[in-house]
Amino acid sequence: MSDSSPTRVLIWNEYLHEIENDGVAALYPNGIHGALADAFGERGGFAVETATLREPDHGLSEARLADTDVLLWWGHKAHAEVSDEAARMVHEAVLSGMGLVVLHSGHMSKVFQRTLGTHGTLRWREADEKERLWNLRPDHPILEGIPEYVELAQEEMYGERFDVPEPDELLMLSWFQGGEVFRSVATWRRGLGRVVYVRPGHETYPTYHDPHIRRIVVQAGAWAAARVRQDARRCTNPASLEPVPNPGKEHIL
Amino acid sequence: MSDSSPTRVLIWNEYLHEIENDGVAALYPNGIHGALADAFGERGGFAVETATLREPDHGLSEARLADTDVLLWWGHKAHAEVSDEAARMVHEAVLSGMGLVVLHSGHMSKVFQRTLGTHGTLRWREADEKERLWNLRPDHPILEGIPEYVELAQEEMYGERFDVPEPDELLMLSWFQGGEVFRSVATWRRGLGRVVYVRPGHETYPTYHDPHIRRIVVQAGAWAAARVRQDARRCTNPASLEPVPNPGKEHIL
Amino acid sequence: MSDSSPTRVLIWNEYLHEIENDGVAALYPNGIHGALADAFGERGGFAVETATLREPDHGLSEARLADTDVLLWWGHKAHAEVSDEAARMVHEAVLSGMGLVVLHSGHMSKVFQRTLGTHGTLRWREADEKERLWNLRPDHPILEGIPEYVELAQEEMYGERFDVPEPDELLMLSWFQGGEVFRSVATWRRGLGRVVYVRPGHETYPTYHDPHIRRIVVQAGAWAAARVRQDARRCTNPASLEPVPNPGKEHIL
Amino acid sequence: MSDSSPTRVLIWNEYLHEIENDGVAALYPNGIHGALADAFGERGGFAVETATLREPDHGLSEARLADTDVLLWWGHKAHAEVSDEAARMVHEAVLSGMGLVVLHSGHMSKVFQRTLGTHGTLRWREADEKERLWNLRPDHPILEGIPEYVELAQEEMYGERFDVPEPDELLMLSWFQGGEVFRSVATWRRGLGRVVYVRPGHETYPTYHDPHIRRIVVQAGAWAAARVRQDARRCTNPASLEPVPNPGKEHIL
Repeated sequence: MSDSSPTRVLIWNEYLHEIENDGVAALYPNGIHGALADAFGERGGFAVETATLREPDHGLSEARLADTDVLLWWGHKAHAEVSDEAARMVHEAVLSGMGLVVLHSGHMSKVFQRTLGTHGTLRWREADEKERLWNLRPDHPILEGIPEYVELAQEEMYGERFDVPEPDELLMLSWFQGGEVFRSVATWRRGLGRVVYVRPGHETYPTYHDPHIRRIVVQAGAWAAARVRQDARRCTNPASLEPVPNPGKEHIL
Repeated sequence: MSDSSPTRVLIWNEYLHEIENDGVAALYPNGIHGALADAFGERGGFAVETATLREPDHGLSEARLADTDVLLWWGHKAHAEVSDEAARMVHEAVLSGMGLVVLHSGHMSKVFQRTLGTHGTLRWREADEKERLWNLRPDHPILEGIPEYVELAQEEMYGERFDVPEPDELLMLSWFQGGEVFRSVATWRRGLGRVVYVRPGHETYPTYHDPHIRRIVVQAGAWAAARVRQDARRCTNPASLEPVPNPGKEHIL
Repeated sequence: MSDSSPTRVLIWNEYLHEIENDGVAALYPNGIHGALADAFGERGGFAVETATLREPDHGLSEARLADTDVLLWWGHKAHAEVSDEAARMVHEAVLSGMGLVVLHSGHMSKVFQRTLGTHGTLRWREADEKERLWNLRPDHPILEGIPEYVELAQEEMYGERFDVPEPDELLMLSWFQGGEVFRSVATWRRGLGRVVYVRPGHETYPTYHDPHIRRIVVQAGAWAAARVRQDARRCTNPASLEPVPNPGKEHIL
Repeated sequence: MSDSSPTRVLIWNEYLHEIENDGVAALYPNGIHGALADAFGERGGFAVETATLREPDHGLSEARLADTDVLLWWGHKAHAEVSDEAARMVHEAVLSGMGLVVLHSGHMSKVFQRTLGTHGTLRWREADEKERLWNLRPDHPILEGIPEYVELAQEEMYGERFDVPEPDELLMLSWFQGGEVFRSVATWRRGLGRVVYVRPGHETYPTYHDPHIRRIVVQAGAWAAARVRQDARRCTNPASLEPVPNPGKEHIL
């Protein structure tokens, strides 16, 4: 934690809406990944790279993931286009210690589903509704500097039941104008890796320009970044461990 | 669980609003404890008793708690009037295995605070708002037969941050018309006892006449009821346990 | 829970050791699945069926799983022989509400890995060591009637770090003579389904004839059995829900 | 976390064994608090103070606790001598954000019992047994640099069932030569404060001179240190929050 080398962040984005839709392009001229890269850059202390769906192999490889401390994932309408092999590689990297921050519609991505073991389904509606994200954990590093609630004038609604395992930590709950609630910022651990889900970020809204949301995403990246890295596939026959010698004390229990 | 003897339920109620306020008396002519006792009676399988604040010793004793499988607790404006000794006895009974279901404004009762180890503070407002309780756990026995959400036309608002330890299980989340959310049905374990908090139930609304809320309260009682009963105060020096003999195998780890 | 129809149990066994090894055959003449089926039969209240690896489609189908309340899974040396499609079907059934009890070496089965999202690796040794399983939750239905600890004279050692997500509930911890510890009985929830892992049960020991272990396995099956059953793949656009009307109260928050 | 001011550590010690027993005095000539203060000093980045039982008011006051980021607590035979008022102040400070690291026999201290809401009872034996602490979370900051297991040649045995609420995080499990296991390093959150329990440290052994144990204790202190500080006793009527205006969209849900 006291290491001064920068945290290596890889931001993965589907990058289709920004190309195909003028309104989205106007909001995110450099793509959602570009906006998020700027947020990390402003904070400082990160070495940021990006990758997108239509690059060869989606811009992903075992070697690149081995050099990544935390991966961010934004995908929406082309989850099926992501190869099973890429999803497997990401999952393995998480188990070995890489952090994973899944954003908004990534709740149904292959990487999230494989890692959590559930479908990630939910209730949704696009109606330009107000969202309020309530801060349950002002003590948590991901929410450092975040007020009691964050309000977004318009967002897509996501409502419960969100089909995920019980979070290890539940950090924010969303209220939506139309009558729903949602577990919007939550964490899980898988293997040696930390996983964070951050709900807001529909492509038709300027959500990733909101300073509070940028702060949450950047702090989620910093918190989830790998502390250790270790192959999780091994199964140990502990022949090399120091043996416990014969206790030699007949009277003990 | 297959035992055919009835579950012994003790419903404790402050019982002041019903006496002092005509509107509340009209809603709950036999007291909130009376309405809840009826709910258990309708379901069947329970032996129900009640106790109230102004009875001698608040109607509580170690002997009575020892004969109780689950205690329900409704209190609001007279938490300070409950003796420390009564709170201590209830806490001990929970640790020894008795179930505890804390209702609505009981979030700041001495019994809840001692048992959870927090203040139970929250945000609140009385504005006749609509409340929607979303069902996160349709698989949980407490929510058997409860639909995707339960709607109450008017309730008091309780909002986060609710100062409680991370629940063992989070069962329902409330949405309030005015912009807040709340962890409304949740469980914790303390010692051998199960603790459930159920939010709705402000005295000026007919909440405990709502069939869904009655069902949740009764099922919370059934779920929390004691499985085992054992003094939690002992500290064991295990002299009487069967000793592990000398392993006698030099080659093992 | 008050339903009088029997709980439908399906016991799946690899069933290779019992055929290929005389010592194992002597311990389990009707297979491990046969011994476990007897344990459920002795308790009563269950309709038990069995399935094995080398049956067509491993004895599994969507229809059969849809009619199963809880599936038990024992596999060891032929995890790779289980088809991906079978593992997928079991995983889907769990998400829809079916219970799953994974036994001993099933910690590396495809069904356990997919459901939990981890590899399930651990440390192990075969040295005829004593195992003590300590009871952390005498209040839990799975451990009803189980003493402070259960001792097995000889078992295979499994040691930490066990590569699994943080359990929702940790019920028993094992001590091994040679110096290791293990989280031996634990539960997780995935979708609407309950998952239990029960460690002991190496094929060369008479573990499944031990009355305490039989009791734990049967009670794990009873506890995990489906309460509700619902397709988890849907993603809801809630057009049909009752709308929240215009609040119409300007003064509220 | 990026703040360069030192973390303010207050080490509280009962400080009786070291005065009354020559063997303990030889191991800890400056008291257990002195040995622990050295450990923090060697690491650097901490401003360390100490307090002991027999100082006026046990060396504790609201003002001093308000200036403390994390409090360590070692007590054993004089728990009853600690005033209820001191225990109350420590509990309040934790709820407001102060970290608390409870060591060894502090499991039955008033501060631990009040904060967790349980008795903290356990099984114990003094028989100079070997202890092995297994590392379940190599990714956790408290265990940074700690190997797969830490071995202590001789320690007091503590065995399950440890009467504590389900930990938020379970970091290390102990194996004892005589046949027991124990949840030895675990964390809980109460209010805004982080609580850590670290088992080893019986006064008759040189445990706090072991470099691994020193590292764990220091890292527990660093991890638990306050991030925010806020009075937890308030109950908010949110009159000053920005109101959610009339949604004004009849068609939305």
